[in-house]
Amino acid sequence: LAQNDVTFPKGFRAWGLACGIKKNGKPDLGVLISEPPAIIFGALTRNAVKAAPVIYCQSVLDSGKRVSHIIVNSGNANACTGDRGYADVLAEVALLEQLAKPSGAVMVSSTGVIGEYLPMEKIRLGLGRLFSEESQSGPFIGAIMTTDTFEKKAQASFLLDGKEVRIGGVAKGAGMIRPDMATMLAYITTDLALDDRYRTLFLENVQKTFNSISVDGDMSTNDTVLVLANGASGIRYADLSKSAQLEFDLGLRTIMQDLAKNIIRDGEGATKLVTIEVTGAASAEDAKAVCRSIANSPLVKTAFFGGDANWGRVLAAAGSSGAKLIPSRLVLEFCGVTVLENGGATTYDEKDLAERMKAKDVSVKVEMGLGSATWTYWTCDLSYDYVKINADYRS
Amino acid sequence: LAQNDVTFPKGFRAWGLACGIKKNGKPDLGVLISEPPAIIFGALTRNAVKAAPVIYCQSVLDSGKRVSHIIVNSGNANACTGDRGYADVLAEVALLEQLAKPSGAVMVSSTGVIGEYLPMEKIRLGLGRLFSEESQSGPFIGAIMTTDTFEKKAQASFLLDGKEVRIGGVAKGAGMIRPDMATMLAYITTDLALDDRYRTLFLENVQKTFNSISVDGDMSTNDTVLVLANGASGIRYADLSKSAQLEFDLGLRTIMQDLAKNIIRDGEGATKLVTIEVTGAASAEDAKAVCRSIANSPLVKTAFFGGDANWGRVLAAAGSSGAKLIPSRLVLEFCGVTVLENGGATTYDEKDLAERMKAKDVSVKVEMGLGSATWTYWTCDLSYDYVKINADYRS
Repeated sequence: LAQNDVTFPKGFRAWGLACGIKKNGKPDLGVLISEPPAIIFGALTRNAVKAAPVIYCQSVLDSGKRVSHIIVNSGNANACTGDRGYADVLAEVALLEQLAKPSGAVMVSSTGVIGEYLPMEKIRLGLGRLFSEESQSGPFIGAIMTTDTFEKKAQASFLLDGKEVRIGGVAKGAGMIRPDMATMLAYITTDLALDDRYRTLFLENVQKTFNSISVDGDMSTNDTVLVLANGASGIRYADLSKSAQLEFDLGLRTIMQDLAKNIIRDGEGATKLVTIEVTGAASAEDAKAVCRSIANSPLVKTAFFGGDANWGRVLAAAGSSGAKLIPSRLVLEFCGVTVLENGGATTYDEKDLAERMKAKDVSVKVEMGLGSATWTYWTCDLSYDYVKINADYRS
Repeated sequence: LAQNDVTFPKGFRAWGLACGIKKNGKPDLGVLISEPPAIIFGALTRNAVKAAPVIYCQSVLDSGKRVSHIIVNSGNANACTGDRGYADVLAEVALLEQLAKPSGAVMVSSTGVIGEYLPMEKIRLGLGRLFSEESQSGPFIGAIMTTDTFEKKAQASFLLDGKEVRIGGVAKGAGMIRPDMATMLAYITTDLALDDRYRTLFLENVQKTFNSISVDGDMSTNDTVLVLANGASGIRYADLSKSAQLEFDLGLRTIMQDLAKNIIRDGEGATKLVTIEVTGAASAEDAKAVCRSIANSPLVKTAFFGGDANWGRVLAAAGSSGAKLIPSRLVLEFCGVTVLENGGATTYDEKDLAERMKAKDVSVKVEMGLGSATWTYWTCDLSYDYVKINADYRS
């Protein structure tokens, strides 16, 4: 298998195959392996209804153990499956331990239909084949996709104090839930050695990337973002110069942001990627709240679908965010054109703005005039196809 | 003019006409008069971006003055119009005071396009005609409608301790914002004499009715609910027996609920009224949070449009509400059919449920199994027409 995305950094292998969970015969079972085992940073769904594999992954994260194997299946989310669902996760782990004699802990992710038990016989046979037919398998990324219409992957290499370090990543979308295909999953690997002190920066990265995107405001039962750092490059973050550390920090943030934005580009029915930038807010919480309120407003999202620079809806959404806001201080821009300042509409070239609003990548910027806090958020428009995809009866 | 809706109780008059704010020549200016002046209870939008008339109405509410006149226009929301917008409200009030010599305070409501100044010359001429051509005018309700496809009105009379008391009401919809038609407005009148002590019950009523509905989760700049009680029946609430008080309380709640539900029935693109009932929650706040999360989930709303009893989406929405929730205790019902209990799916007659989901009025019930708190919420489905209506370019 080619070395790319999650296997681009040293010491990672990954592959996948079709074991029959998906009725269409597409790949649905994969494994990601780190040798040596990796320190792992994770962000899991905050939904009170957590799928069995998410509950299990939390226990692995809490244990602080290094991880050598991640098994992922698509086609079935193992969510709302109660005690039996959790027992199935443990059975998967036990089987993997038999088959692969892992040198570290094992994690499990699932994505797909909610409320159905895992087809354990298919998974048992599939895991067996995964480890006996590695050479005949396909890429890992295929096995994690559900309704995604394109692959979301990224990789980059850096010369840090003269030595090469690599980062790679894959994600699957928040083209959520069809028929009940839930979940965003993202796996990012690096061969740099990170230690526990990186956890704070990881969580900030998640806030600024995967937690700053929205297709429809719904939070799945299975959302999972994992960063694995195995140190196979022989380089330790702690030993790097300040500037090399910063370069890695920015590189990791960029990879995570690229994966997150591609999830939005592939949002169900999406025709546009909308970047929402809030500046001059009284606090970062306020800036994020305004972003989120705009990003989740169906009225704003349908306006973008229609190519309409509808500042009244953006303003109403910002005003209902709960953030401190003084209307007379607001400045609003669509695609670089100022449409509102000092609480009133400006005169601008409507034809020019209408042209700009036709682009695939559009933006809205809100300057609050209250402080120096900023936030950036990404969302997509709300189209006929979103309704079509999600109103179809499960069948 | 016939005595109905807001003019059904004694001492109220109301009418409207077309003064040219709306380009289609439909009624757009109306007045509601209470003689004697009425004590007034109000709930105004909590959006930080408040329209000029809302800011003015708040000052009248804060003054505690009795109100004799309410002027309403449609076609222009006088929102995001800054100091000039507020000066226009004061000019309207001054003109009304010249024309009608009101015996109480004056309130003003506006609904329609955001970000344009009121056409004051048209309003001046219109107000003049309102008071010189009363006999040639049409019903008040016509003048407050924007994208509403039917009139929302209600009335009822009660024998309280043997004496007749009346309640009437009108509302206009949260068929929000097309092109920028914002706002829910509701006016409820009664000839019972209420006093300040009723304010608590009024606010609770608003929470349980107009604040428990959602078309798309957006909060307008102009939302206004007013109850006027003028005592023209000669009967004071304070003098009634406990059981008569309760009958009035329930009557008022029912009128407010009927108006609120009709706003949802007429939501943009709505094909179904969805009643969401949460029981057994740990607190009323939790119950309402679960209701709201389900009501505002585009995935749930599109599923209802498709007639799909998609409990996975309801569960995911409930789980992301922030409310205390233990999956294994949940019981979920669609249209009276239990689809989930003890955290797992039940077996039920799918054909029967599919039939039930085709009705115009459908329901979802969530029993949390944690306490005794309940809440009820109303929403509509999300259809192609919602996207169509809201994606159309303003023109």
